[in-house]
Amino acid sequence: MAMMMMNLKRAATSAIRALPAAPSSTGALARHLHGSVGESKKIVGVFYKANEYAEKNPNFLGCAENALGIRSWLESQGHQYIVTDDKDGPNSELEKHIPDLHVLISTPFHPAYVTAERIKKAKNLQLLLTAGIGSDHIDLPAAAAAGLTVAEVTGSNVVSVAEDELMRILILMRNFLPGYHQVINGEWDVAGIAYRAYDLEGKTIGTVGCGRIGKLLLQRLKPFGCNLLYHDRLKMEPELEKQIGSKFEEDLDAMLPKCDVVVINTPLTEKTKCVLAVIELYKFQFFQYRVDLGMFDKDRISKMKKGVLIVNNARGAIMDTQAVVDGCSSGQIGGYSGDVWYPQPAPKDHPWRYMPNQAMTPHISGTTIDAQLRYAAGVKDMLDRYFKGEDFPTQNYIVKEGQLASQYK
Amino acid sequence: MAMMMMNLKRAATSAIRALPAAPSSTGALARHLHGSVGESKKIVGVFYKANEYAEKNPNFLGCAENALGIRSWLESQGHQYIVTDDKDGPNSELEKHIPDLHVLISTPFHPAYVTAERIKKAKNLQLLLTAGIGSDHIDLPAAAAAGLTVAEVTGSNVVSVAEDELMRILILMRNFLPGYHQVINGEWDVAGIAYRAYDLEGKTIGTVGCGRIGKLLLQRLKPFGCNLLYHDRLKMEPELEKQIGSKFEEDLDAMLPKCDVVVINTPLTEKTKCVLAVIELYKFQFFQYRVDLGMFDKDRISKMKKGVLIVNNARGAIMDTQAVVDGCSSGQIGGYSGDVWYPQPAPKDHPWRYMPNQAMTPHISGTTIDAQLRYAAGVKDMLDRYFKGEDFPTQNYIVKEGQLASQYK
Repeated sequence: MAMMMMNLKRAATSAIRALPAAPSSTGALARHLHGSVGESKKIVGVFYKANEYAEKNPNFLGCAENALGIRSWLESQGHQYIVTDDKDGPNSELEKHIPDLHVLISTPFHPAYVTAERIKKAKNLQLLLTAGIGSDHIDLPAAAAAGLTVAEVTGSNVVSVAEDELMRILILMRNFLPGYHQVINGEWDVAGIAYRAYDLEGKTIGTVGCGRIGKLLLQRLKPFGCNLLYHDRLKMEPELEKQIGSKFEEDLDAMLPKCDVVVINTPLTEKTKCVLAVIELYKFQFFQYRVDLGMFDKDRISKMKKGVLIVNNARGAIMDTQAVVDGCSSGQIGGYSGDVWYPQPAPKDHPWRYMPNQAMTPHISGTTIDAQLRYAAGVKDMLDRYFKGEDFPTQNYIVKEGQLASQYK
Repeated sequence: MAMMMMNLKRAATSAIRALPAAPSSTGALARHLHGSVGESKKIVGVFYKANEYAEKNPNFLGCAENALGIRSWLESQGHQYIVTDDKDGPNSELEKHIPDLHVLISTPFHPAYVTAERIKKAKNLQLLLTAGIGSDHIDLPAAAAAGLTVAEVTGSNVVSVAEDELMRILILMRNFLPGYHQVINGEWDVAGIAYRAYDLEGKTIGTVGCGRIGKLLLQRLKPFGCNLLYHDRLKMEPELEKQIGSKFEEDLDAMLPKCDVVVINTPLTEKTKCVLAVIELYKFQFFQYRVDLGMFDKDRISKMKKGVLIVNNARGAIMDTQAVVDGCSSGQIGGYSGDVWYPQPAPKDHPWRYMPNQAMTPHISGTTIDAQLRYAAGVKDMLDRYFKGEDFPTQNYIVKEGQLASQYK
């Protein structure tokens, strides 16, 4: 893992050197400010295919087949809307449209990787929209340098992820899966479940990072009668802290040994620790990925309580993959659950699939039907504003007028 | 199923007729009031065996090996403490001790069935303690007639069960298990999960029955931003209703069609609907079992919202077994989860093990380590009071001085 990280860092450095020089300030701002209003646009959407599932739910808007439910709205206004799931490599459907598209929409669940090369080639490109939250599939400095606008539907799935985290805490704490396995295997052995099944009440839960998702999680945990801790760069206002019922822990390594459950809600870009890495994901292309790579390594895990439960819906690479496997095998980690992996999609032989005491799923928590309805509505709203030459809600901007949003700087 | 119910009812009637005539009032009260203080007692505990799991957790008190952790305390006071898991039939270890035991302790998870015959044979028996909640393994009218005291550790696992119910709601709503199955099967197909994964926020949750567990569930659901409904014989005080944020529904069949999630928290003995049945469980013995047998049948299920999620930690027999299987297969029921079965332990071929969209476990929610610590402490406290000739906490009594607690009448 350490060697892999080093290689990634080296690759990152050379990728940064390879970035095209930033164009002049006038050039950087030109694309978004001119030619937006009243013209027919070519819009490309990249989403995962749902195949037989596409028709099973009319609100399943996030798949390629249903394409956010905005096709007739777009076409009735004279815009062209191309949708595909074929996004990687020089012969992909997406690549064909790069030279003349105006808007590219994608999601974190099946991301269209927007490299500096693609940006260079996309002469008409003005706007990159993320249907959801998390735009690290886009080379943001290159997008900024090229004067593109990048925006997400901020807040569209924070509730979805917070609920999912609470579910995972309960699944681990109450030792749900061994019981379920007994059921489907025709068994009945209460002792085999009960010896390590606990109530959540009275336990100490610590969230590492306490942004919007972390706060929503703590609010939902409050009636459970737990001891709630949070570590973040920022202490909450005393009023909010009291309302949520959680205690600030300035020092992460002082908090961790107190916790029965550790939930990772670290943003990708925590300034003090983030590194810039370039990960070779699809063999033929590079993209930028900011994470606290391996923030939870063997050493840090060994300092936690024996049997600690860990929930991580933030990023797989925050964990040292093998350290998690070893921890789950030795019992140092009592259970590990999350929907994020490194890399994604997780390969068939990813060791987290087969380690003991895991309660993993594919990357799903932010794409519930409810979240899809919200991010589809948010994308439609931004397109509408874009067509009319209006600003987006401020919090949605990731790149605007050549500048990255503060958390991506 | 209908035929089975009829047979059970018939069996119940004949079993009631077969009850021994109640002894005189003096006789009924004699056993508990005399001979308790200062004497050496023979106490028998019946618990499930944990085998290799017994030593894995020093707080795993509910198993036969650890025997509530009260052995040295009992023996230091000169009492005899026999513990076994061998409880059924004329040659069982329990049967050997029936003639001279003073106290019998058991749990709902591995119940020592106390029939009228056993009560008749147990000449020294004074006290029946349930380590946990639920004493329907005891023939309560026969116990009352014989002047025995029956008591439970009321409240010892209500939090445990309420937490477990919330976990199950989330597991079904967010479609957790298909994601988990993809992980262990080496797959990755977000669409196959997402097309029926929802947030809990904004959904309507109705609890059928709203005693202590139902209230604790609603309190924990409050921050999720749901529409909370409850059906019960009793409307809460307006103050409590407001605090919990839940709306009373007097008519069950008016509430059900509104619910995205139905949680069964019906007590066993809801007066308006309960029937007395005697279920032949172990071929050779009868015991009494009070339930709303088949309260949720095909007809009632068909009136719910299509795709309703059902959570039932109350009693398996409240559901018509086949109606649940059919509902899960047709999609009328979107998901079914619970830890109670009919009968228990669930046989290897119980259809709920193999129906689609189930998230079942063995009967476990009330026997977390925390619940075990509470019910072990509660049993110890009652034994201590019994040795000293003191009363128990009022709410613990199921049978006292020849009278059944109101909910069992």
